[in-house]
Amino acid sequence: MKKSLGVTTPVFPAPVLIVGSYDGEKKPNVMAVAWGGICCSQPPCVSVSLRKATYSYGNILSRRAFTVNIPSEEQVREADYFGIASGRNENKFEKSGLTPVDSELVDAPYIAEFPLVLECRVLHTLEIGLHTLFVGEILDVKADESVLPENGAPTMETLKPIIYEPVNRRYFRIGSYLAKAHSVGR
Amino acid sequence: MKKSLGVTTPVFPAPVLIVGSYDGEKKPNVMAVAWGGICCSQPPCVSVSLRKATYSYGNILSRRAFTVNIPSEEQVREADYFGIASGRNENKFEKSGLTPVDSELVDAPYIAEFPLVLECRVLHTLEIGLHTLFVGEILDVKADESVLPENGAPTMETLKPIIYEPVNRRYFRIGSYLAKAHSVGR
Repeated sequence: MKKSLGVTTPVFPAPVLIVGSYDGEKKPNVMAVAWGGICCSQPPCVSVSLRKATYSYGNILSRRAFTVNIPSEEQVREADYFGIASGRNENKFEKSGLTPVDSELVDAPYIAEFPLVLECRVLHTLEIGLHTLFVGEILDVKADESVLPENGAPTMETLKPIIYEPVNRRYFRIGSYLAKAHSVGR
Repeated sequence: MKKSLGVTTPVFPAPVLIVGSYDGEKKPNVMAVAWGGICCSQPPCVSVSLRKATYSYGNILSRRAFTVNIPSEEQVREADYFGIASGRNENKFEKSGLTPVDSELVDAPYIAEFPLVLECRVLHTLEIGLHTLFVGEILDVKADESVLPENGAPTMETLKPIIYEPVNRRYFRIGSYLAKAHSVGR
C-alpha cells in the first residue's frame, strides 16, 4: 500500500547540466539546469527546461543555440554558483574565473575547464508552463583527454559526474558499479 | 584542448524510468526508459522519450496516460528485463512476477513492488526523430512507506535509485553525499 505524496517532482536521479549561451552583446553566460537529458537517439538530441525569467531563456531563443557542459564533482562549487546567480546582474565567467570558449559549430560558448561539452542547435521549443523545453540537436561532443579512457568514451569512473537529488536539493557522488545494462535482466 | 568525440549522447547521469501503460485490451505493459526526467515545475511534468517501434508508444498515444515507476537497486534485474523484452510478444508483469495496480487517477497501471510512482496524463507529444517525447503532467506521486523518512520525501539514501551510464550502458549505485545545492556555490 503506497502513500500519496501529492504533486511533486521526484525523479531520481537528475543531472547537473551547465547550459552556455550568448546574450545580444555576445556576453557569455552559463546557468545550471537539473531538468534535462537526452531525448532522442537519431538525430541525437538533448533537452533542457528553463524558466522564462532566466537570462539564458532569451539568449537561447534568439541565438537558437546552446552548449551543455557537464561538471565533475570537483567543480560542484562553480556548478552550484551558476544556478544561484543571474547573468542579468553579473558575469558568471569572470566571477568564477572559468574560461569561455567560442564554439566553432554553434553560436554559443562552452567552458574550457569542464570535462565534457555538447554543442547544440535548437530544433524545437515547447512551452509547457513555468518551464520551456528546448530540444537541441547535438552537433558535436568534446571531452578532456583526462576523462577519456584509451580510445573510449567518458565513463562514470573517469568523469565523476555530480548527481542531483530533486525535492531535497542535495548533490551526490556517483557510486559503485551495479550491473551491465541490456544484459542482467535476461 | 578538448578532443572531438563526434555525435553521441553522453549525458551523465541518466535515470532508469519504468513506464507503465495499457494496450487496447487493457493488458498492462512496462518498458525501461533512460531518456526522460522532470521537464517543468508548474504544472509538474515529466518527459519520457520512446521509439515509435515500441509497444508502449501506441499504448500511450491512445490512452493519453502513463506511469513512471522508479526502481531501487535491488530491482535492477526486473528493470533491465523491462528494457529488453517487448510487450508485443510477452506479458512482462507475468514473466517478472510483479503486480500491476490500476491507477485511480489515470488510464495506466503502476508496479506495486516498485518504491516510487508518478501518475501522468499526456499534455504534449513531440515528434523529434527516432524518438517521440511525451510530456506527462504529474497528477500524483505515490511512495512506499519504507522509502519515506518521517513525514518527508524519499531520499537518495532511502530510495537507492539505479543510475544509468549512457554510451557504455552500465548501471551504477548512488554514491555518497557531496554538498547542499543552492548553497555550496554562494
